[in-house]
Amino acid sequence: MKFKSILSIAIFVSFTILALSCSSPKPKEVVVAPDPLPSWNETSTKQQIIDFVTTTTTTGSPDFIPEADRIAVFDNDGTLWSEQPMYFQMAYGIDYIKKEAPNHPDWKSKEPFKSVVSGDLEAVMKGGEKALLEMIMVSHAGMTTTEFEKSVTAWLETAKHPKTGQAFDQMIYQPMVELLEYLRANGYKTFIVSGGGIDFMRVWAEKAYGIPPYQVIGSSIKAKYESVDGVPVITKLPELNFIDDKEGKPLGIHQHIGKRPVFAAGNSDGDYAMLEYTSKGDGPRLGMIVHHTDSVREYAYDKDSPFGHLSKALDDATKNKWVVVNMKTDWKVIFPFEVNLP
Amino acid sequence: MKFKSILSIAIFVSFTILALSCSSPKPKEVVVAPDPLPSWNETSTKQQIIDFVTTTTTTGSPDFIPEADRIAVFDNDGTLWSEQPMYFQMAYGIDYIKKEAPNHPDWKSKEPFKSVVSGDLEAVMKGGEKALLEMIMVSHAGMTTTEFEKSVTAWLETAKHPKTGQAFDQMIYQPMVELLEYLRANGYKTFIVSGGGIDFMRVWAEKAYGIPPYQVIGSSIKAKYESVDGVPVITKLPELNFIDDKEGKPLGIHQHIGKRPVFAAGNSDGDYAMLEYTSKGDGPRLGMIVHHTDSVREYAYDKDSPFGHLSKALDDATKNKWVVVNMKTDWKVIFPFEVNLP
Repeated sequence: MKFKSILSIAIFVSFTILALSCSSPKPKEVVVAPDPLPSWNETSTKQQIIDFVTTTTTTGSPDFIPEADRIAVFDNDGTLWSEQPMYFQMAYGIDYIKKEAPNHPDWKSKEPFKSVVSGDLEAVMKGGEKALLEMIMVSHAGMTTTEFEKSVTAWLETAKHPKTGQAFDQMIYQPMVELLEYLRANGYKTFIVSGGGIDFMRVWAEKAYGIPPYQVIGSSIKAKYESVDGVPVITKLPELNFIDDKEGKPLGIHQHIGKRPVFAAGNSDGDYAMLEYTSKGDGPRLGMIVHHTDSVREYAYDKDSPFGHLSKALDDATKNKWVVVNMKTDWKVIFPFEVNLP
Repeated sequence: MKFKSILSIAIFVSFTILALSCSSPKPKEVVVAPDPLPSWNETSTKQQIIDFVTTTTTTGSPDFIPEADRIAVFDNDGTLWSEQPMYFQMAYGIDYIKKEAPNHPDWKSKEPFKSVVSGDLEAVMKGGEKALLEMIMVSHAGMTTTEFEKSVTAWLETAKHPKTGQAFDQMIYQPMVELLEYLRANGYKTFIVSGGGIDFMRVWAEKAYGIPPYQVIGSSIKAKYESVDGVPVITKLPELNFIDDKEGKPLGIHQHIGKRPVFAAGNSDGDYAMLEYTSKGDGPRLGMIVHHTDSVREYAYDKDSPFGHLSKALDDATKNKWVVVNMKTDWKVIFPFEVNLP
């Protein structure tokens, strides 16, 4: 055996030991990142969202936003879940009033309770949806926060949406759930800023959207705290505390978040002030309007609807550079329960 | 050269390459976890805190609390930073009123502004500290939220504490900062729940305590939102919105957090309801009272102090199983600026 041959063996042995002992580097592969928004069609809307998230979270990008300032706010009714044929909280309120009517003889002759109990929703609606929502919230007065939570939970377990027959908390928008997750995966904090009742939403929002109670902002009635026989109790009072709608939305944001958001999504003129407050700041901003255009899979409405009335915000969308989501063409599916359908 | 010699070289080369190429496993060492609360003396107080955090975060422990429910709330004045010889926000308010007096001729003859401007703090205090704090908050009416933030920031850069000569935002308690970090490192969300102004605290709380604005709850005056020449502005109004003190604290917690905390720390009777609400729930709970017992390093006060009045909460501490922190004996240092002293 020649020296050269032996050296060859030695080197071979060396590298064999090396190969067996160390974890070898894997061959280069082209890794395709999974689509963060699989329920969105490949339209310019989707691209604008991805561009915004990419540029605001890429270190060194001129549009980079530090993580502490990545605040995203979402309206709920009509933006994260359906709001037709009426706000779902109103459906809950009507069911609650009907169930409780035997305990409130005075409701028999008192509007709007009288019309609610008799099922005359047209008469109920005469006061306008805001007045009705307030009335429903106030009708909860006297309940403790624990009782209210139980009542909403029980309702969600039995009540069904009149069009789809699904539980109301299944009527959430799958593409928006993906958007929330996509933002959070990129360091954004996601908040709900809704005209709906804050306690009503908190019962189910964490499970539905992954948004914890302390990131839910909404309308509320006043409450009182007391210790009853050593047991601390918070009881709802028949007095409005805060209406988180229109100009109330930026105020609710300031009160609860204390930072100006850089991303806002809404679907009605009630979201105008929030969209304006968010998008007219310095640096990169994204304002989004969900436009209900799909009468087959969901509903088609804007200027003429009492729920989710959308007129001025749509007219000013181009001027304000707000992204308008066309539900019919931008979304592959609407609801989670469609995802696994054949 | 013999075959054996060459083989020896080959093996030597093999192992040399191996040694240089692979990271060898380190010998076993006894790893001592760093003390999470280095500014706390080794007393039963510290042990109770560590026991609580350990048992509530150890999987399989009967006292385990899921991460979503790990909510910890802290009073601010006297619990996270000093409150003597007066609430620091009051010092800011007095400085602000003195500076602004030339622009408000009516203050010359109007109490308590008149006494504030003339420096007669005894007369100012006649209305009680709550009335004074409200007056100071209301005196900010007309400022935009941006102007207010700038004003507080500028004040913190120049004003000094009368006893220590330090900036007011240096008068925070080092042991409590460590406690906040320890809780967060164990999956707890930390919130401030203070009678102080929510906007005042948010200016500096994130830097001082690592608590972001959306986890700060406090008292507030009302505000209005408007778009002035296309620029969104929030302006403070001369009307109280919410007093986050006494029974207001559980209500503020319910409104902002929407979950019942499992950990609460306070230092005065103003925290009684919050401590009660937190500690009288099911499962493991920890209520804590910071007792000011150190007249040399900080201040010693309880029943007789107008700021941080502590009487009933201290009397009931044992009955309620609240941990009482004795600042003099439980804390190695009080302020961060002492840590690096010789």
